Order: sequence, then structure tokens, then C-alpha cells
Amino acid sequence: MTAPARTRLSPDERRSQLLDLGVRLLATRSLEELSIDMLAEEAGISRGLLYHYFGSKHAFHEAVVRRAADDLIAQTAPPGEGDPLERLLVSVTAYVDYVDANYEGYLSLVKGAAGNDTLREIYEEARAALTDRIFREDAQGQIITDSATNRLLVRGWSAMIEELVLSWRAAPDGVARDELIALMAASLPAIVGVIPPG
Amino acid sequence: MTAPARTRLSPDERRSQLLDLGVRLLATRSLEELSIDMLAEEAGISRGLLYHYFGSKHAFHEAVVRRAADDLIAQTAPPGEGDPLERLLVSVTAYVDYVDANYEGYLSLVKGAAGNDTLREIYEEARAALTDRIFREDAQGQIITDSATNRLLVRGWSAMIEELVLSWRAAPDGVARDELIALMAASLPAIVGVIPPG
Repeated sequence: MTAPARTRLSPDERRSQLLDLGVRLLATRSLEELSIDMLAEEAGISRGLLYHYFGSKHAFHEAVVRRAADDLIAQTAPPGEGDPLERLLVSVTAYVDYVDANYEGYLSLVKGAAGNDTLREIYEEARAALTDRIFREDAQGQIITDSATNRLLVRGWSAMIEELVLSWRAAPDGVARDELIALMAASLPAIVGVIPPG
Repeated sequence: MTAPARTRLSPDERRSQLLDLGVRLLATRSLEELSIDMLAEEAGISRGLLYHYFGSKHAFHEAVVRRAADDLIAQTAPPGEGDPLERLLVSVTAYVDYVDANYEGYLSLVKGAAGNDTLREIYEEARAALTDRIFREDAQGQIITDSATNRLLVRGWSAMIEELVLSWRAAPDGVARDELIALMAASLPAIVGVIPPG
């Protein structure tokens, strides 16, 4: 057992390691605050080397946000088996935990996505992955049958739970975390069940 | 009966008239596309006079967005009497009609609000007015009792119906307008009813 040898990392591995560091730094600061200088200092390497890996601050930000979105999708994956509502609850809990732990960066992404085409694309892709997953994971339609109306409703629900966690994180106002999570999970079957299929 | 005499308008009335024109122009174009030049041409007055009224393009945009938000709040006011669910349906219908008629401007506002502090403030104020109204209009709590949890849920619902109307407007995908409106209205009582008050 030896300590990881930095010199043995391939360029791809090193780049990936730097992205992980970027995502960690982004957890507690906005994207605008996350500079190449800061990453260089935290990583103990030169700015020049970082520009070699990422090309520009803009490209670095995109790569970090893409990695963060992948992390979010991976961390909120529901368990492969079990009661559908229970699996939904596990996934929603992981989502709240993720936003809670990465609040500043997540907030800046939601804001930044609105004004930046590339960030919006990453954001929309992540949201599509998260909502499509619901239909794939619930292929038997135990919670929600696959239809154009329900695809639309799940998009709406997704916007709702994002607003709920961000509002709650900014001002919990006495609402307990477990209550929030239970409300988020229970609202999906409630919304898709409001009007019986015609 | 004579035609309105433009020279008789006070500066405030003239400014207000120009704002109405700005809002009409914003309906079918984004905020970035709405220039002082365009407004000057449509109004048949000089750019210099518009700068006199609004100071800067930035201030002009803010004033137009504020007027648009006031219009939205006024146009979506529920009727003063009647069954609570019926009043909610009327309000939601007016909201969908508003976004439908002012799509380009509304979309640009939602996007612009994320990256601009003043626009975000106007947007947040409008959203707060729309959500607070639900508790004021439903003071007897027939649809929704007033609590911290329900205030949070109404914020979430508000984000959901915005996402629903924007997604639907971009790609209706066979979902009928009436179905969309019925889903939006029915989802509010469904969401606040998911967990019985403890």
C-alpha cells in the first residue's frame, strides 16, 4: 500500500481529478467565484497547466458543470428494486441531500443556465435525464403511465421540487427536512393522478 | 367625439402610453430585441425623447417588465366570488392565456430574471404577489390552509405551472389547452392535500 503517485496519472485521469476538485469547490461558491486561479492554488499546480487541460475559464466552467450534473444524476439514481414509492423517496432524499451539500454551486447553475446557452443545454440535458429516468425506472407504470401528458407533468413536478428545495434551503421557516422530502415524493403520484385518463 | 389629442397628454400619461406600447412589442420578441430605436419608430417619436422619458435602455427595460408584471397580476386576478376551485380555474386560464399571448417576452423575462438582479427582483415580487393572493383570496382556507408548509408548496406549484405552460407552448405534443389548464388547477389541491396536517 503506497500513497497515490501523482506522476503516474494519465492526462485524462489528472483532468478528471481536477474536475472533481472543481466540483468540490463549486459546492460552496458560485460559478462566477470559481476561478482558474483558485483551482490552481487548491490543486497546487500552475495556471498554465490548467489552461493546458481546459483551454479557457469558460471551457473549465462548462466541464465542471457537466461533471456536477453527472454526479447529481448518479447520486440520485433510485435503487434497482423495491416498492416504486419507496424507490422514489430514496431518489428524492438523495436529491435534497445533493442540493443541500452543493447549494451555492447549484443555485448559481440554475441562475447561470438561464443566461448562457451552453450551461442551459447541460442543465436541460440533466433535467431530461432525471425526468426520463422516472419512466424508465417505473416501466411497469406503477406510479405513472407513460403518456405525453404525464411527460409534461413530470417536467412540471421536476421544476416544483427544484423550487421547493431552493426555497426551503434559503428559508426553512420551520419546515422539517423529512417533511419536505415526504411532500416532494408524495406530490408526484398526486399530480399525475389528478385527472383520470380519458 | 374627437380623436385623442396627443398634445394633451401629460408626461406621465405619455410615459404610460409608451410603456403599454413596449409591453405590446415585448409580446412577440425577447427583451434583448426590444430596443429604444424600435420603440421610437413604433411610437413615431425621436430616440432623444424616449431617453428623456426613460433615461437609459436598461431603465426602459425595467419599466416595461414592471408594467408587464402588473398586467399579468391584474389579468389573472380571480373573480371576487364563487366556488373556490372555479375561481382558481378562471385565474389559471387567464395565466395560460397571458403566457400564450406574450410568449416571447415572458420567456425572455424568465431567462433574464436569472441573470439580472433588478429583473429578478421584479420577477420575484410578481411571483410573491401571485402566490400570496391565493391565501388572501382563499382566506377561509377552502382550498388551502395558511401554513409555512403550504406557503412553500404554493411556491413550488407556481414554479410547476410556469414550467408546464412554457414546455407546453414550446411543444404541445398533443396535450389540449383545456386539459393543460384543468391539470394546473387540479394540481394545487392535490399537492397541498398529499400529507394530512399533523
